[in-house]
Amino acid sequence: MKKGFWRGKFKNSGAEFKDTGFSNLASAQGSRLLDSNGKFQVKRTGSTNWFSFSFAHELISMSWGKFLGIIFGFYVLVNLLFACLYYLAGMENFMGGIARTESEKFFEAFFFSAQTITTVGYGRVNPAGFLPNIIASVEALMGLMSFSIITGLLYGRFAKPEAKIVFAPNILISPFQGEKALMIRFANARNNDLAELEAQVILSLVGLEEERNIRKYYTLKLERSQVTAMPLTWTLVHPIKDESPLLSIDQEGLEELEAEVLVTIKGHDTIFSQTVFSRTSFLPSAFVWNAKFKPCFRKSEDGLETILEMDKLGDYELLA
Amino acid sequence: MKKGFWRGKFKNSGAEFKDTGFSNLASAQGSRLLDSNGKFQVKRTGSTNWFSFSFAHELISMSWGKFLGIIFGFYVLVNLLFACLYYLAGMENFMGGIARTESEKFFEAFFFSAQTITTVGYGRVNPAGFLPNIIASVEALMGLMSFSIITGLLYGRFAKPEAKIVFAPNILISPFQGEKALMIRFANARNNDLAELEAQVILSLVGLEEERNIRKYYTLKLERSQVTAMPLTWTLVHPIKDESPLLSIDQEGLEELEAEVLVTIKGHDTIFSQTVFSRTSFLPSAFVWNAKFKPCFRKSEDGLETILEMDKLGDYELLA
Amino acid sequence: MKKGFWRGKFKNSGAEFKDTGFSNLASAQGSRLLDSNGKFQVKRTGSTNWFSFSFAHELISMSWGKFLGIIFGFYVLVNLLFACLYYLAGMENFMGGIARTESEKFFEAFFFSAQTITTVGYGRVNPAGFLPNIIASVEALMGLMSFSIITGLLYGRFAKPEAKIVFAPNILISPFQGEKALMIRFANARNNDLAELEAQVILSLVGLEEERNIRKYYTLKLERSQVTAMPLTWTLVHPIKDESPLLSIDQEGLEELEAEVLVTIKGHDTIFSQTVFSRTSFLPSAFVWNAKFKPCFRKSEDGLETILEMDKLGDYELLA
Amino acid sequence: MKKGFWRGKFKNSGAEFKDTGFSNLASAQGSRLLDSNGKFQVKRTGSTNWFSFSFAHELISMSWGKFLGIIFGFYVLVNLLFACLYYLAGMENFMGGIARTESEKFFEAFFFSAQTITTVGYGRVNPAGFLPNIIASVEALMGLMSFSIITGLLYGRFAKPEAKIVFAPNILISPFQGEKALMIRFANARNNDLAELEAQVILSLVGLEEERNIRKYYTLKLERSQVTAMPLTWTLVHPIKDESPLLSIDQEGLEELEAEVLVTIKGHDTIFSQTVFSRTSFLPSAFVWNAKFKPCFRKSEDGLETILEMDKLGDYELLA
Repeated sequence: MKKGFWRGKFKNSGAEFKDTGFSNLASAQGSRLLDSNGKFQVKRTGSTNWFSFSFAHELISMSWGKFLGIIFGFYVLVNLLFACLYYLAGMENFMGGIARTESEKFFEAFFFSAQTITTVGYGRVNPAGFLPNIIASVEALMGLMSFSIITGLLYGRFAKPEAKIVFAPNILISPFQGEKALMIRFANARNNDLAELEAQVILSLVGLEEERNIRKYYTLKLERSQVTAMPLTWTLVHPIKDESPLLSIDQEGLEELEAEVLVTIKGHDTIFSQTVFSRTSFLPSAFVWNAKFKPCFRKSEDGLETILEMDKLGDYELLA
Repeated sequence: MKKGFWRGKFKNSGAEFKDTGFSNLASAQGSRLLDSNGKFQVKRTGSTNWFSFSFAHELISMSWGKFLGIIFGFYVLVNLLFACLYYLAGMENFMGGIARTESEKFFEAFFFSAQTITTVGYGRVNPAGFLPNIIASVEALMGLMSFSIITGLLYGRFAKPEAKIVFAPNILISPFQGEKALMIRFANARNNDLAELEAQVILSLVGLEEERNIRKYYTLKLERSQVTAMPLTWTLVHPIKDESPLLSIDQEGLEELEAEVLVTIKGHDTIFSQTVFSRTSFLPSAFVWNAKFKPCFRKSEDGLETILEMDKLGDYELLA
Repeated sequence: MKKGFWRGKFKNSGAEFKDTGFSNLASAQGSRLLDSNGKFQVKRTGSTNWFSFSFAHELISMSWGKFLGIIFGFYVLVNLLFACLYYLAGMENFMGGIARTESEKFFEAFFFSAQTITTVGYGRVNPAGFLPNIIASVEALMGLMSFSIITGLLYGRFAKPEAKIVFAPNILISPFQGEKALMIRFANARNNDLAELEAQVILSLVGLEEERNIRKYYTLKLERSQVTAMPLTWTLVHPIKDESPLLSIDQEGLEELEAEVLVTIKGHDTIFSQTVFSRTSFLPSAFVWNAKFKPCFRKSEDGLETILEMDKLGDYELLA
Repeated sequence: MKKGFWRGKFKNSGAEFKDTGFSNLASAQGSRLLDSNGKFQVKRTGSTNWFSFSFAHELISMSWGKFLGIIFGFYVLVNLLFACLYYLAGMENFMGGIARTESEKFFEAFFFSAQTITTVGYGRVNPAGFLPNIIASVEALMGLMSFSIITGLLYGRFAKPEAKIVFAPNILISPFQGEKALMIRFANARNNDLAELEAQVILSLVGLEEERNIRKYYTLKLERSQVTAMPLTWTLVHPIKDESPLLSIDQEGLEELEAEVLVTIKGHDTIFSQTVFSRTSFLPSAFVWNAKFKPCFRKSEDGLETILEMDKLGDYELLA
């Protein structure tokens, strides 16, 4: 709690706002609000209501490996379960079976179950008695219903509208109209067409107030916070003037105040016709002072197209 | 109709608005507008147009038990219907049948129907004559079409975008910037990411006017009614000053005026990319005067994450 | 073209606006812009680009009878086509066939096709030769793909988010705060929950200008044009004062000026999480002067719920 | 770099704005920003992250021919792969096979695979041994999952909400309220109902500034930029007065400044309940000076409907 800087050099700005959904009690918070992938560093405990866990959200969000593993595990387990039921109902109630040993009979039941739940139904092995017929009818219905949900989840995952915004790794402080401005550059890594983009930049600082570490939030006013399209790059420009909280902070100050710059980009994915969000955060180490971004696009050979060079997105030059 | 309070102590505020979709005639209304789960306490009658009933909305909204029961019942009924048709068409027009008694034949028809409608089609029993072939072709088409709708409904239910907002059970009246403020705290119980949240708080009071009980609605002005994200909690703050209708009401007044506080939270579910709503309402018994919420999050052991303790969401301390 | 009224009694209002997407040349327009179901009375011709016809929109919008007829016709036609192919490839290349006459063979091919395209695949009749196997492989793929689209359309139709707004059949001119106001009442006929409703009311009048019949449009300013929820009814109130174009028009004037009142209601269907629109239009014959709506809801027997009586939605009483 | 016009005759307007997502460095850009179909003329290179390529977006956006080719190729390849696996596992582990030569056996495996992956499962050829049963169980699961995604993509393509806006090929400069105005006319070629339309028109000019070719962007202020519905046509009207950058530019100037007029139309597709965008751009050659659009709709024979003649959408007459 050595935040002398807070009161000393830092001009408390009118741009501050009270409640961001992040809360202000810095000492009760983890060291970073957002990681650079835009994921909130928050864990929930004590939620007694088991149903507050959403299967659908989890299954859509988890990694592909984990998801496919769960599907495969579910498939094997359900088939094992029904294999047991068929086996208990008696494999002599089936026609077409060729198994002789008990383990062969169990596997015959297992594969019959797999053929039923997927509705393949080759039919060499087929239920003849009443009980296996009932179980198979239920399994076929259950299979169709399970695969309904799997179908939806698979396509939901595959075709999830998502902005693939790539940010230049550095925040630049560049000369701008005779003054200085904070610059954040990014581009859409995909060829899909984002429309009606909106950007919001929040600066979070931790300072000492009434003997407690308090986190404060400042909206950084942008020269332009909306564009209708972003075929190339978009550079967010926050002029450091007037009420900007950055007016009296240097690199040392950013570090002492545990600065974190939170960026939210919102856009409309015109292919899936849905609103997408992209978030990131920058720490003080990402700041470069007195530099400017180099162009990262050029005219194509034939002069008809513009080539956007994504690998040059972060390129900048230091100014004298 | 003993609302002396209405005219006596209660300062009629400029924040009142005329039409909320709830209507003002209190004597014709049930005792509560919204239950605490945010469901409107309204029933419709006299809608002569049968089609105004929406199967899809009902099937999406009903409980899982009821939904699965309806699907299962539909499955059994349709199979019974087609079993009758096959039986009437004559089971001698099928090949592979092993049934001897009439009831066995009927069940053979029933299970053949189940195998057809689910498209399992084992094929031991299979249609040979013209008529059963026609019926089976129609049943297979009907099966595919029915399961199309069931597929959609199942996934629609499973992956319904829904905000799982948990509210602290009490409304606090807390000291705030030298005055008092009404505080409502809530959090997202799920790990999914809600963006662009908006809150609206309406106070409904019933008073006597021209010899009739009239319900009036007041929008409670919030210090901040929008946040871009809510990883932790959000506390809605309504300062009790200026035009606030709460300026001249105490606990007794709330009860006499049959106060109900209606809260609507709107957000954007970033995983399903859709807008979700959450509503609740508070009765006078939920008010706690001169108290403040305790923090309900803390730094994780490793200092990297913030732990949100959902079971402490409602914790508050009474002030001297 | 006898619109003396236009210039005579009618005060040209500042609420007029220029372009509504309807255009102003009344003499080139049909007699009514919207029918009472909210469907625009417009037909398109001369669109040389065949693709401007959208199958998906047509198939979603058409009647259920027509839609199911098209699906059934498609099913029969595709099966006939593949039956021909199998027949031409030679039914001797199939195993399990029992047909003897040529027509029996054709029907065997037809039913085999139906079993393949629905993926039922009983398998008594099954392809043995190379050519029928190739055709059957293609048909099964085609079947899966066709039913993909049919699945989507069926569910899209079944679960189409749609506001089922029911309007009172009359527009009332009622006393309101010492003046008069135009009143339009409506309710949601479904139990689903509409949120964030917005209403817009436009008055269209046809008058003589520079020797031509010109249609003009006036936005009728509403006392309240948004509500957050509409559990009961909503009465749109347009006070007839200030710039209201209705200030100097009576019933006779409405008829002479070929008035049409266009109402658009927009809302958010919270179950399907989508924006829905409802439109209607009223002709002068729907106006009732100096009347007011009667309440159409009451307290339930147990006093807990409010009963909305949809059949009393249009009830009004004439005032002295 | 001979842009004398830039400084000479062209009055630099206050309507200019800084960042459009297009960037200002004209010399690094292709000759045109948007083609007339509204597609940005931009190519991305150097995106090292392979995953920035989105399969789903590509598969939804590509032509139908290419899409169906990919599905068919995938079907053949997967069947070939599983045919190899079955063949290697030994066709003697199958029952019902009739193949004698090795190539016949391979094709039997191939067709068995096709019957399994589509879940047709005739079952004449069916797995008897453990290994083929395992492989077939996995293939059936994989088939269901692959076709889940194909189902979604197919319907996503088929029912993609898309505005089919048709623009008149020319921009007219017409007399308007004693002055001149730029006019752009368009209509919805489909019968579907677009609601809440918004239009934005941007003029892009290239001029010489500090020895570099700079592209500047000007929002052209519209008389009306929103309509609630567009059953007929909509003519965008930009009055050339006040701050309009067109005030001092003639045809020669447009060409010298490499003018490009970018039009974005946004609307709500009421059938699919989604937001759709339509873009186009006009070059100087599309301008027609001192002309006005002819009406392109008329009353139907029976006087009830309005006929919109799409082939007359671009018709105009030159004024004296």
